Amino acid sequence: MSIHAGAHVDPGAVLGTGVEIAAGAVVHAGAEIGAGSSIGAGTVVHAGVHLGANCTVEDLVVLGKRPRLRPGSSAAGTLGELVLGDEVTVCAGAVVYAGATVGDRTILGDQCQIRERAVIGEQTVIGRASCVDFDACVGARVSIQTAVYVTSGAVVEDDVFIGPSAVMTNDSTMGRHPPGESLAAPVLRRACRVGGAVVITPGVEIGEEAFVAAGAVVTRDVPARTVVMGTPARATGEVGSDELLDRWR
Amino acid sequence: MSIHAGAHVDPGAVLGTGVEIAAGAVVHAGAEIGAGSSIGAGTVVHAGVHLGANCTVEDLVVLGKRPRLRPGSSAAGTLGELVLGDEVTVCAGAVVYAGATVGDRTILGDQCQIRERAVIGEQTVIGRASCVDFDACVGARVSIQTAVYVTSGAVVEDDVFIGPSAVMTNDSTMGRHPPGESLAAPVLRRACRVGGAVVITPGVEIGEEAFVAAGAVVTRDVPARTVVMGTPARATGEVGSDELLDRWR
Amino acid sequence: MSIHAGAHVDPGAVLGTGVEIAAGAVVHAGAEIGAGSSIGAGTVVHAGVHLGANCTVEDLVVLGKRPRLRPGSSAAGTLGELVLGDEVTVCAGAVVYAGATVGDRTILGDQCQIRERAVIGEQTVIGRASCVDFDACVGARVSIQTAVYVTSGAVVEDDVFIGPSAVMTNDSTMGRHPPGESLAAPVLRRACRVGGAVVITPGVEIGEEAFVAAGAVVTRDVPARTVVMGTPARATGEVGSDELLDRWR
Repeated sequence: MSIHAGAHVDPGAVLGTGVEIAAGAVVHAGAEIGAGSSIGAGTVVHAGVHLGANCTVEDLVVLGKRPRLRPGSSAAGTLGELVLGDEVTVCAGAVVYAGATVGDRTILGDQCQIRERAVIGEQTVIGRASCVDFDACVGARVSIQTAVYVTSGAVVEDDVFIGPSAVMTNDSTMGRHPPGESLAAPVLRRACRVGGAVVITPGVEIGEEAFVAAGAVVTRDVPARTVVMGTPARATGEVGSDELLDRWR
Repeated sequence: MSIHAGAHVDPGAVLGTGVEIAAGAVVHAGAEIGAGSSIGAGTVVHAGVHLGANCTVEDLVVLGKRPRLRPGSSAAGTLGELVLGDEVTVCAGAVVYAGATVGDRTILGDQCQIRERAVIGEQTVIGRASCVDFDACVGARVSIQTAVYVTSGAVVEDDVFIGPSAVMTNDSTMGRHPPGESLAAPVLRRACRVGGAVVITPGVEIGEEAFVAAGAVVTRDVPARTVVMGTPARATGEVGSDELLDRWR
Repeated sequence: MSIHAGAHVDPGAVLGTGVEIAAGAVVHAGAEIGAGSSIGAGTVVHAGVHLGANCTVEDLVVLGKRPRLRPGSSAAGTLGELVLGDEVTVCAGAVVYAGATVGDRTILGDQCQIRERAVIGEQTVIGRASCVDFDACVGARVSIQTAVYVTSGAVVEDDVFIGPSAVMTNDSTMGRHPPGESLAAPVLRRACRVGGAVVITPGVEIGEEAFVAAGAVVTRDVPARTVVMGTPARATGEVGSDELLDRWR
């Protein structure tokens, strides 16, 4: 174990063997850090964080932040611990909320935000500055590029690819609906590919192995293996069998 | 008062009763922190910051940053204090400049940026990673979602809703205009709704209670209560009386 | 020299005359900080960082971060030092990787990310929250606004202007290509102007002094001095001689 003299580790934190904590890091009582994990400089680990073994948490990260909600926010709900699996990497400047769950060997990129009750599978990459909003569910081996917005309640299945600055929305009333009415987040089925800066409107489902070209605005469901493009997006072809995921992994 | 032994508080800072300052926070001489407010771990509070009562400033925030401008920048101007009202929440990783003003009970989301001379009203939410650029004016009870860009000089009136990743621009010459020529920022009138990833070009006015669908590129003024969509945005209908703000608050 | 008692400076760091280091900053062994430079509160300077003279590094910055790559990432490659020239400004919350090079008097905005082997010229401004991805090359006097994504391998020549939230992509297969196949990043020629929220697809070249209107999706090369707009972008005119760069600098 190696704790820098300039780190602030509460005696009520639980540290596994071989944990390294850098200068200026703050670890609160009630945090658990698994064996072999490292915590970067200036990083803050709040109570209720459960970090697995051999994780790398870089500098200036916040783990286990409590939500700050306006009154009546649709994000209200119960909060559990923040649970990160083994060999997870959390990059510099990321903010990860209490109540989220992150699978083994997943990478959370620099300056990203992962909200409460988000669930992220194994071996996924959440790109730099991207957001996985509350109650969203992201599968395994998903590749999310930089500055993507995964809206609350969205479902992103395994092996999906989402290009940079793609955006999903989930409320076609933009705030003018009865309190508690459930929102209609998009669903991205297994192994679909969504291009850079694509906009996916509420309730849309992108089918398995579908392909959405960069810059499209998707307002209707996209059938499996269908190629769409444009504003609004229209079908222009089919994904060839030589492009299916099984060919490339 | 509760100041962590690992905080760095200059004796020239003024702290109200019941202030809490976490480990690693840095409070410079000339900062004023109102009674009952808390400052998170690693947060930096510069001289000239005036924080009201019962505010929550989370971890790794910068308050009162001085602008760093290139020579000839259109952002040049005088700078006052950074004034935050009472019960303001500033979330993790936010950067708030000297000379900005923020109203009571407003929430500044994680990783947002608020520039010099921006004015933000009461009970507004600035979404995570959004930017309110210099000299912009945002009203009360405004809801700005994640990663929105409010360009410098823009006016966003009360009760406006702006969806994720919406962008405004203010310079149709992209830098090729006489020095000091004033830019033409958009104006968003009371209670209008702007969808996700909408682009609003220089000088455009969005009327009261208007509705701009997600993904639209707005190149001309939108009359009050008008629904527009597409690229470039065209009118497709009128906002029904059952959708007006008064029905929903 | 002025090193705050609350800073953590390794004896193996090399500091020039007049260097100032604020509270909570962490400077690792093997970092070199040029004469007259200042390091803000909570900022982390890793080994292998070579910072020139009279630089300003603000609060909560990470300099010299090592990449964290998934297995098989196209970002794999050798890493050198992070070299920043003289009078460089690195703003709050920025993350700058080992192996990048930044020219004199350039400004890296708040919360931006500069990846490994990116090369940025002199007197350039990288806007707040923008990303210059690995192996991208950005020239001198470039003006990149907020939240822009410069994809890996992209070339942005001198005097280019890029509006807020513009996005480039470099992989038309979205991950389904042979390992090691080189990607086709866009090329932005000297003094072209790219509007806000523009999307530039793989392999596209924007010609010298060309003008791409806000919100366009550019899928084909744009000839020099040509004005394009729309989705997909089409030519609508020519840039007038009174708008050429030489008239305005």
